[in-house]
Amino acid sequence: MTFTEVDERLVNTIRTLAADIVAKSKSGHPGAPMGMAPMASVLFNRVMNFNPANPNWLNRDRFVLSNGHACALQYILLHLYGYNYSIEDLKTFRQLNSKCPGHPEAELEGVEVTTGPLGQGIVNAVGLAIAERHMAATFNRPGYELINNYTYCFVGDGCLMEGVASEGMALAGHLQLGKLIAFYDDNHITIDGDTDVAFTEDVEARVKAYGWHTLHVKNGDSDLNGILAAIEEAKSTPDMPTLIRVTTTIGYGSVNAGTHGVHGSPLKPDDIAQLKTKFGFDPNEKFVVPTEVTDYTAKKIKAGAEAEAQWNNLFEKYSKEYSKEASELIRRCNKKLPAGWEKALPVYSPKDDAVASRKLSETVLTKLYDVLPELIGGSADLTGSNLTRPNQAIDFQPPNLKIGEWAGRYVRYGVREHSMGAVMNGISAYGGLIPYGGTFLNFVSYAAGAVRLSALSGHQVIWVATHDSIGLGEDGPTHQPIETLAHFRAVPNLMVWRPADGNETSAAYKVALETQHTPSLLALSRQNLPQLEGSSIEKASKGGYVLHDVENPSLIIASTGSEVGIVVDAAKLLESQGHRVRVVSMPDFYTFDNQSPEYQLSVFPDGVPAMSVEVQSAFGWSKYTHEHFNLDHFGVSAPYDQVYAALEFTPEGVAKRALKTIEYYKSSKPASRVKHAF
Amino acid sequence: MTFTEVDERLVNTIRTLAADIVAKSKSGHPGAPMGMAPMASVLFNRVMNFNPANPNWLNRDRFVLSNGHACALQYILLHLYGYNYSIEDLKTFRQLNSKCPGHPEAELEGVEVTTGPLGQGIVNAVGLAIAERHMAATFNRPGYELINNYTYCFVGDGCLMEGVASEGMALAGHLQLGKLIAFYDDNHITIDGDTDVAFTEDVEARVKAYGWHTLHVKNGDSDLNGILAAIEEAKSTPDMPTLIRVTTTIGYGSVNAGTHGVHGSPLKPDDIAQLKTKFGFDPNEKFVVPTEVTDYTAKKIKAGAEAEAQWNNLFEKYSKEYSKEASELIRRCNKKLPAGWEKALPVYSPKDDAVASRKLSETVLTKLYDVLPELIGGSADLTGSNLTRPNQAIDFQPPNLKIGEWAGRYVRYGVREHSMGAVMNGISAYGGLIPYGGTFLNFVSYAAGAVRLSALSGHQVIWVATHDSIGLGEDGPTHQPIETLAHFRAVPNLMVWRPADGNETSAAYKVALETQHTPSLLALSRQNLPQLEGSSIEKASKGGYVLHDVENPSLIIASTGSEVGIVVDAAKLLESQGHRVRVVSMPDFYTFDNQSPEYQLSVFPDGVPAMSVEVQSAFGWSKYTHEHFNLDHFGVSAPYDQVYAALEFTPEGVAKRALKTIEYYKSSKPASRVKHAF
Ligand SMILES: [Ca+2]
Ligand SMILES: [Ca+2]
Repeated sequence: MTFTEVDERLVNTIRTLAADIVAKSKSGHPGAPMGMAPMASVLFNRVMNFNPANPNWLNRDRFVLSNGHACALQYILLHLYGYNYSIEDLKTFRQLNSKCPGHPEAELEGVEVTTGPLGQGIVNAVGLAIAERHMAATFNRPGYELINNYTYCFVGDGCLMEGVASEGMALAGHLQLGKLIAFYDDNHITIDGDTDVAFTEDVEARVKAYGWHTLHVKNGDSDLNGILAAIEEAKSTPDMPTLIRVTTTIGYGSVNAGTHGVHGSPLKPDDIAQLKTKFGFDPNEKFVVPTEVTDYTAKKIKAGAEAEAQWNNLFEKYSKEYSKEASELIRRCNKKLPAGWEKALPVYSPKDDAVASRKLSETVLTKLYDVLPELIGGSADLTGSNLTRPNQAIDFQPPNLKIGEWAGRYVRYGVREHSMGAVMNGISAYGGLIPYGGTFLNFVSYAAGAVRLSALSGHQVIWVATHDSIGLGEDGPTHQPIETLAHFRAVPNLMVWRPADGNETSAAYKVALETQHTPSLLALSRQNLPQLEGSSIEKASKGGYVLHDVENPSLIIASTGSEVGIVVDAAKLLESQGHRVRVVSMPDFYTFDNQSPEYQLSVFPDGVPAMSVEVQSAFGWSKYTHEHFNLDHFGVSAPYDQVYAALEFTPEGVAKRALKTIEYYKSSKPASRVKHAF
Repeated sequence: MTFTEVDERLVNTIRTLAADIVAKSKSGHPGAPMGMAPMASVLFNRVMNFNPANPNWLNRDRFVLSNGHACALQYILLHLYGYNYSIEDLKTFRQLNSKCPGHPEAELEGVEVTTGPLGQGIVNAVGLAIAERHMAATFNRPGYELINNYTYCFVGDGCLMEGVASEGMALAGHLQLGKLIAFYDDNHITIDGDTDVAFTEDVEARVKAYGWHTLHVKNGDSDLNGILAAIEEAKSTPDMPTLIRVTTTIGYGSVNAGTHGVHGSPLKPDDIAQLKTKFGFDPNEKFVVPTEVTDYTAKKIKAGAEAEAQWNNLFEKYSKEYSKEASELIRRCNKKLPAGWEKALPVYSPKDDAVASRKLSETVLTKLYDVLPELIGGSADLTGSNLTRPNQAIDFQPPNLKIGEWAGRYVRYGVREHSMGAVMNGISAYGGLIPYGGTFLNFVSYAAGAVRLSALSGHQVIWVATHDSIGLGEDGPTHQPIETLAHFRAVPNLMVWRPADGNETSAAYKVALETQHTPSLLALSRQNLPQLEGSSIEKASKGGYVLHDVENPSLIIASTGSEVGIVVDAAKLLESQGHRVRVVSMPDFYTFDNQSPEYQLSVFPDGVPAMSVEVQSAFGWSKYTHEHFNLDHFGVSAPYDQVYAALEFTPEGVAKRALKTIEYYKSSKPASRVKHAF
């Protein structure tokens, strides 16, 4: 199929619209959309499978704009290809309540993942491609290639400089993700000017070293044939992801084309006028889509509808021949857990052994692994420490490596925490899967950029964050989190569970798995924790509850995780001295904050002083407690019991501070901290 | 100089000591030290310049153990080469208060930087090498090559998988840091087992693509000649950093050599016995350093003392010929700021224009740039947005690129936030320099791993974090920080300044520059901020102060940065309605918390309700305020004034909540939140 004038017209329509959109909103990035218009038009018009009438068609090809600041391009494509984006919508670019916000957001129709923070999108694409390989291997049957979509991704110089992209692309090469095709918008420009100032590496050689196939389209401004030929060649290496380097001119058509002057601010009116003239558009008209372009894209829209119809036929037949698989696929894509799944969650009584919560987590995962085949786990090279790999697991690996298979559900992420987070977001975005990934709690911080995007996009992702405190002992302060719980508790729409025993660990998984649009971080201990009297899955599922109570308490001690058992012992010590102490366990602030005000007040009633005990920063605790026995300095390297003893996180150390608190408040009745004026 | 039996003896002494140390402490990593013993012994004995009698000798070669978990090796080397580490010290490895903690910490004698969190050390080494190039260009004079040290770094598979290392190594290649020589301990093993499961890339090809010189020593277990030859060859390419891939056997000598069984736990006693026998050591003795080894290393120790003595002679002559430069070098290495430097800080009055605090920061940097030549700045490709580059700045670039020079003080970091943080730590560790680096506040999170190491190690590093809130407007929620201030406020030993106007911006820099062992993060606005009545450098330097006061206030409103001006207007509105409102500005929690309890109580006195106003998470504010008008959800994409209006962060919106607070507390006198029981 050759390219004709209408293809060129399509390209230039994208370019002029990009200029108009950014000028109208007086904000945004016109240059990259104008430079990427040719590759975008070839990809959308000639290559990609999608049906605008059903943006959620399971087997659609996925498109990720990793350089999300170029999103004017994406909104234009969504408009031209029949998604629910009108010209009027384009005119509201970057304005309040617009369908076209400053960066693409996953909840928008036709947008697979939220991008903008550089480097994330390309790694989300790796996750989407992993999910495709896995879902295909799991659900395809002879004669039924239900799942075989490609994942396409545009990346810029910025993405390729980010470490998270390096990690994810290296993993993609190892995993031989042949259906991942990335386009590198090689325009030699970043915000600081020419890439010569900081980015002079040989990108193709580097990416090839990861195990990718690389191609180069030298004239990406107009060589549509070259772009199409490259995509076809990319598909010829099914066991290698491909990077197509497309050399382009940023802001092609503008008088400032090829400079960073067209990167991040609108083109001037006379510049837009001259470029429209140059492209054969009326310089006095704005937001123009020529009829021949509309007619042309209409064909593609129709073809997309037909493609899905055909697929639906295939699925109908599949449903008859493989009804169990079909209904399982539907269940999983609808994010519906199998009835009674929660019965697999282990329950404990105080007679049971003391066990580290990382080990309790392993037990949960092992028991759930066959019940919930949507679970796809992994670790950033800490499998034996995180205990994230149930015995029955098979590694997710290219079959030719003979160390796993595509249907395997355990991903060896390597020492790549940040990209593990971004890959999990991509897996979650694909659908039908719930990813979890392990590392030390302290190193979830390396992935902070991906974690916040999980929360912003509502990806159901579970972090198995072990070695959650100074309790990891000998590794010392470089590995002992202090600020980490505060950091993640402050992220909106993120659960941060720190279970105190077996029942609370089960509760953490229960709520994490039942909450479809909120990611979870499970902070788990390296050291053994006793099974507590008074804990239950039901109570812990409220995020905070009274674990141990007395009549008319003179003090509440609130705590989490490994410190709760110490606090219970402290309470007993204090009771033996005639004090009345309530113990509150607070496994997840987020969930507790979502309980009714009455419930919250029943846990922290008026008139009773409350003290927190946790071996991390006190920061944030004062929203519940009046006094704080926390750790606002870095830890130390020594066996964990010695560390706890040295820092006085012992029943005696807690009791000492409890007595001070009781004494301090003996003549005053402090108001509950959970009551508010507004 | 050929290698003889004593060299082999030295290598095996290191190996047996590593086995003994880890066995004695029952914790640690024996395998990597045993595998790296040959390269370590060649490097320390034959190559490196250092004087144990003065670990701070300016021109010493720097050594960084990026795979910090192998630190038994480093402590052994420090012991063998005459640093203040006895055999008894080695026996306390990983125990409470030991000189030999679980990972190397910068404050220890002979340890340049804190390592352990993977990927950081190699990038610290990049920073050390940048500092060397810059200091050499700044202080060397014809005939006086005062500064010409090398930076050596050991890295493992884990480091090379981390994105931060990719970023930093790419930058090092661009910058042609020829005096950086890294040794890749290629042992094919990580915690998850064989590197085949996740790390199959062509490391040499990848690193070569960054612009590095690469070499391969195939038998790193015993080819001492090959190791030495490689180092010499590395030095033959002065405009390229070198990676020497040294193929080794992890745990060489153990019966489990070459497996991950020797990675992270002690060798069994009979294994240690057999390896000692194999190496010609008495299997019944522990912690043995043969006399011939002691005699041998003594020669190197002596040579090191002589090398420094020679250098001191050179410096003495230099001091005579270049007295100004010499005293400047001494001043800078002593971290002493020039007398009266602070007079360069701009001061503002309410009549001055409203200015964005990022712009106010630019003014400070411009005025200080010539006064404080130790400032070495940069940005992660956001120079024009962060405003981090004073007009008079020259880029730090290899001279042959013709876009800067080694004496330049502005680093183009590229879109590499995490490695910018780690590079700044390395620059700070070198001495004589104070690094600052710009990015958007939201993307400092990408560098969280490096920021916490700045704080843990006490590096004086300054983050110029602009676009600090929803006030950045159109870029939307992907770029608008919500949890970020809480995250960094919870890090011990980290200042998080959010200045409200020009005087507060000057104060933030003043305290940041005067505090030698605490890093700072400056959160700065994109939007204009009015110059406030009542602000001053002196007052703001306390971290929190009464900006606007009335007699007998019925409410305190505490705020930071861009919201303070809004709060002042709200206070006026409330006063016009007969209410008495004190306004407190809290530019830095850390500094405020270090003030006396009396001072803190004078700002937040007993009996007066306090309300916070800040367009980020309320998390943490309750330690000062009873009520909170904050933002506990993600932001939106729109022009900033519309975003503020939509979320009611306006004088009216603040006043509305203030009235609710006054009403709620009208019949109670809440205790000050800054008073505590203990
Ligand atoms: Ca670019
Ligand atoms: Ca290794």
